[in-house]
Amino acid sequence: MNKNEIIALKDEASNHLTNELLPFWTTRMKDEKNGGYITHFDKDGKDTGEDEKSLIAQTRCLYTISSAHRAGYGNGEYAELAKHGINFLIDKMWDNEHGGFYWMLDRKGNVKIDQKIIYGHSFAIYSLSEYTLATGDQRGVEYAEKVFDLIQKYCVDTMYGGYWEMFQRDWTLNGPGSAGGDRKTLDVHMHLMEAYTTLYECTGKELHRRKLLEDIDILNIRINHPKYKTGIPQFFKNWTIAPQIKFDIIWGWDRFSEEGEKGNATDNTCYGHNAEFAWLLIHALKILKIDPSTYSKTFKIIFDHTINNGIDYELGGVYVEGPHSGGVSDKEKEFWQQAEVLIGMLDGVLLFGDEKYWEAYKNVHRFVFDKVINKGVGEWYALLTRKGEPIWTHMGHSWKINYHTVRSMIQSIERLEVVLKKFD
Amino acid sequence: MNKNEIIALKDEASNHLTNELLPFWTTRMKDEKNGGYITHFDKDGKDTGEDEKSLIAQTRCLYTISSAHRAGYGNGEYAELAKHGINFLIDKMWDNEHGGFYWMLDRKGNVKIDQKIIYGHSFAIYSLSEYTLATGDQRGVEYAEKVFDLIQKYCVDTMYGGYWEMFQRDWTLNGPGSAGGDRKTLDVHMHLMEAYTTLYECTGKELHRRKLLEDIDILNIRINHPKYKTGIPQFFKNWTIAPQIKFDIIWGWDRFSEEGEKGNATDNTCYGHNAEFAWLLIHALKILKIDPSTYSKTFKIIFDHTINNGIDYELGGVYVEGPHSGGVSDKEKEFWQQAEVLIGMLDGVLLFGDEKYWEAYKNVHRFVFDKVINKGVGEWYALLTRKGEPIWTHMGHSWKINYHTVRSMIQSIERLEVVLKKFD
Repeated sequence: MNKNEIIALKDEASNHLTNELLPFWTTRMKDEKNGGYITHFDKDGKDTGEDEKSLIAQTRCLYTISSAHRAGYGNGEYAELAKHGINFLIDKMWDNEHGGFYWMLDRKGNVKIDQKIIYGHSFAIYSLSEYTLATGDQRGVEYAEKVFDLIQKYCVDTMYGGYWEMFQRDWTLNGPGSAGGDRKTLDVHMHLMEAYTTLYECTGKELHRRKLLEDIDILNIRINHPKYKTGIPQFFKNWTIAPQIKFDIIWGWDRFSEEGEKGNATDNTCYGHNAEFAWLLIHALKILKIDPSTYSKTFKIIFDHTINNGIDYELGGVYVEGPHSGGVSDKEKEFWQQAEVLIGMLDGVLLFGDEKYWEAYKNVHRFVFDKVINKGVGEWYALLTRKGEPIWTHMGHSWKINYHTVRSMIQSIERLEVVLKKFD
Repeated sequence: MNKNEIIALKDEASNHLTNELLPFWTTRMKDEKNGGYITHFDKDGKDTGEDEKSLIAQTRCLYTISSAHRAGYGNGEYAELAKHGINFLIDKMWDNEHGGFYWMLDRKGNVKIDQKIIYGHSFAIYSLSEYTLATGDQRGVEYAEKVFDLIQKYCVDTMYGGYWEMFQRDWTLNGPGSAGGDRKTLDVHMHLMEAYTTLYECTGKELHRRKLLEDIDILNIRINHPKYKTGIPQFFKNWTIAPQIKFDIIWGWDRFSEEGEKGNATDNTCYGHNAEFAWLLIHALKILKIDPSTYSKTFKIIFDHTINNGIDYELGGVYVEGPHSGGVSDKEKEFWQQAEVLIGMLDGVLLFGDEKYWEAYKNVHRFVFDKVINKGVGEWYALLTRKGEPIWTHMGHSWKINYHTVRSMIQSIERLEVVLKKFD
């Protein structure tokens, strides 16, 4: 770890963020005609015309542009683009009758899927709070609190704890199985932690602090593997492990068999999620003003699991997933896992000062800049072979947008600056 | 069990209810000057002048008079008296700033204790729903739902399940120990079942049904003793048993040592609560349209525990409490336990057709009519010696009102009529 090396990596990230990544979106995403954001782009960055606006893509774009503005990028010009996005969310996606946001609209704003999906609502809280923190416009936190209140009212399992996740438009809980009404997931509980952190940062309210602390306990005590501290994807209501199934409402492309069940359905953990969980918890503790060393044993176990199993030391980058006890079952490379492991490894460096996390960071950084970034276009490929050949080549989609990539660069640059001061 | 015997008992109860008990209250309770109800009466039924109006006494009076109206008593005249009570609740006890009801006012309506106590709020939901069912006035259910929503938002422990119970005026959770902020109780979770049952009866909403079912699970799985099915009074947040302590905010007179802890602090169960739980659950299942035989093993264990341990076959009536595994530790007689065991034993008769529950009913009925009722005055003594000599002689107080006595008579008469048809 030397000064020039750190500076070089930081400059590479800064250049990518300010000259490639952010411009990719800010020059394309504004839907002047219908409001909100256009989110579907092919490998050349051309609008594919796909006629949908998903709750997660709209809220993630709002988060991205708000957070970039708050972090000082864009010379103050991003606030207007953020406002453009929140207007669409409030005017078109909000259900004035039952409360909450619709899951899917077409570009014009007509409702295509009216279910209330908590995964999407966690990003609503996250992005709306970030928007208020970035711009001062109180509409963000006003709607973030409306969503928070709806979740407390309709989604908590008051018997076993945790949240139900999939509902009809009127907040009637969905049926079991692929309808999702009898499952609890790592995904939702982790993104609620992320959302409640920023909500609490924005409001300072005791209630938001309390629910954040409870969700942190859910993640540590119920969701993470008791020994390996790795995330377990799906549970039944009483927190027994559920085989990983594909839901009717999806928010990503995942590889299931035709029967909709994973191979190794009950023994999968995902390196990107684990590293993301760790750094999000470190961030939550910072906002809560709790010493991160409270959980340092957990962080060490997670980061070591990541570097011992998730990093491809031969060809670079982060694998998809493997068993909790170690080893790899899927060696392809997903864009978002690279993004999250970058931040996680830098937190490992900052927390433990251990060179091995720095080596892992550099490995993934190199893989991202050499293979994942679509050169000359500016965004990242969604999925690559182990060697780094693009498989899915779209730049934007309802399930693949700017939140992981832009956040990874903003957060990594911030951490590299601290590393520079601390270890130089 | 013969026809004349049943009729004689039913007539005795009817006569007491219509000629003594209801008139005791309807001739005294209306506070013409300040609104709401006067609730403090000495052994002769004279207003003691005590300058307080408690949330539980006001809501319980509203329940009592509304339920009597709905059951057909009072020739339609009670609706007005119920309306008089709800007006005070809404105009004076409701906190327009933070939502929820204050715990204690003086007679004029000035706030004496502004804490938000869920025990009291369970009776708010119960009585406000009963009021709408009785009168059709929608203000009742409107405020019942407001309280329900506040409880979902502020009181659920989303990690371990169940509800937190004691809050500051602004719904900040109280501190630990006697402030109550780290305890979960049988009392609150049982009265929430009672409240949610009537709320669901009133609204038919899926959410209210769902939360009722979850609370039933909490009671059966967390709160009742796994073997004896007897209620355990207090728990810590993760449902380990907490020693029974006295809280700063009380809603009854209980006998604690000067240190505020019970003798046998971790091994007490109360016969009146157990019987009350059982019949309230039977009633809830009826409203939910679930066959009570789903829980018949539990009901049998509870009713047998009551008759094997709680009934004083020598001197009559129901003891206060004893260990879960059997035996009695406190042989005095509390009015409300008699009231609840009467209903429970009749449900035992109806569910199992077993003569032993009928014998227990008759025992307690006789004790109530011979010893507990304050003859010529019309209400019941609050506490008596084992032999039936009055110890606490007040007829009304913030912690001792008409809800148990009137409800016991209304519910017993209804059941005696069914017994008459079924077993005659």
